[in-house]
Amino acid sequence: LESRMSSEHIVKSFDDELKQLSQMVAQMGGLAEAQLQAAIEALVARDAEQAARVVQSDARIDQLERQISNQTIRMLALRQPMAQDLRQIVAALKISSDIERIGDYAANVAKRAIALTQSPPMRPVGGIARMGRLVQQIIKDTLDAFSENDADKAVAAWKRDQEVDDMYNSLFRELLTYMMEDPRNIGPSTHLMFIAKNIERIGDHATNVAEIIHFLVRGEDITEARPKSDKTSFTVVNAPEDKA
Amino acid sequence: LESRMSSEHIVKSFDDELKQLSQMVAQMGGLAEAQLQAAIEALVARDAEQAARVVQSDARIDQLERQISNQTIRMLALRQPMAQDLRQIVAALKISSDIERIGDYAANVAKRAIALTQSPPMRPVGGIARMGRLVQQIIKDTLDAFSENDADKAVAAWKRDQEVDDMYNSLFRELLTYMMEDPRNIGPSTHLMFIAKNIERIGDHATNVAEIIHFLVRGEDITEARPKSDKTSFTVVNAPEDKA
Repeated sequence: LESRMSSEHIVKSFDDELKQLSQMVAQMGGLAEAQLQAAIEALVARDAEQAARVVQSDARIDQLERQISNQTIRMLALRQPMAQDLRQIVAALKISSDIERIGDYAANVAKRAIALTQSPPMRPVGGIARMGRLVQQIIKDTLDAFSENDADKAVAAWKRDQEVDDMYNSLFRELLTYMMEDPRNIGPSTHLMFIAKNIERIGDHATNVAEIIHFLVRGEDITEARPKSDKTSFTVVNAPEDKA
Repeated sequence: LESRMSSEHIVKSFDDELKQLSQMVAQMGGLAEAQLQAAIEALVARDAEQAARVVQSDARIDQLERQISNQTIRMLALRQPMAQDLRQIVAALKISSDIERIGDYAANVAKRAIALTQSPPMRPVGGIARMGRLVQQIIKDTLDAFSENDADKAVAAWKRDQEVDDMYNSLFRELLTYMMEDPRNIGPSTHLMFIAKNIERIGDHATNVAEIIHFLVRGEDITEARPKSDKTSFTVVNAPEDKA
């Protein structure tokens, strides 16, 4: 009897550890989502101080990633989990790595938002903010899918990345036009291009997370073709003069 | 006796599996290094066919990552490794994730090299090629450090990323100048900026790998401050007209 009780105690405590691990991942994801939101707000409001706070706060996300990594290694070593538990731990490790990148990209958006306060406002900022809010929603839905073990919700979030790519492609062309119209637009437009690219990559990492969740819940990959399509890498751009 | 022999048999076979896992990681890294080299060569030679082969070959790297991921999960489940063996398996998983990103960035360099064959040659391509070769060398040294369990070699490779960032910062400014001089340069310069950024990020992932190797061999993080410094995110750029 004593042995069974002790074994039950271990089982319960392992479930607690798994739950705690998931909470750390959810917390890290929530922070990354908030960082993106704050970076976009700082960009729109031309608020260098808020942007600087975003840059500083990235350290907290990096710290959480290290904690999750240490926790997973500890659980693998001490608990020697099997099957689904093991997959869950490895998924937490992989998801935290994607979220860490999302945090990096959000911090880079904030850095560029600081630089952009030094030049006049640019109209495409509005489109970038819309794209940022869409990606933020995708992150949120993906994190909900993770917390609820909901593969369908993960697929739905994953599919919306196509909209992000479409917005990115059209923003890219708009920014090129601005650059060609007036050389004074080149500096700020370059920052906005990299900001748009950062947000597009955040979307990619969110779809990675959605794929990991789907595999975790269903035991198989998402079978539909990945919606990924940054067409701008293939874009051949000619200055207006060349079109004549 | 039979039991001891069988236990020795299991131990040997686990070492074989660990060795095989390391070889898969080294093979994947070698492929990514070759992809970067081929992409840079295609860019310099304006060879759209070679560039297209690089884009296609990225699937092989993605496939290897999935194999490594499956292999690590299998080893964790069946072998329930402890301590150093466990750290080695988790390191293989993390390194393969960084190498997968390196492959993605190399493929994106190749995609943009295809687009660039449609516009006249640009002088900054030479500087980008030098930066690409430096990053390729850093990847090679990092992979050597991995194969030889050499933490000092990993630190040496890690330090050289500072040179990459310096080259990136100066290329970025050079490309801005080209864009401002003539609007026909804007399209190709934009591709070259993203190519330079891709290579800079490849350097970042190589330093990540170096950090993982250092932790694996020494059991502690690299203590020196990370040399990371993409100054261009903070760059305030004004067109020549504004400087007057």
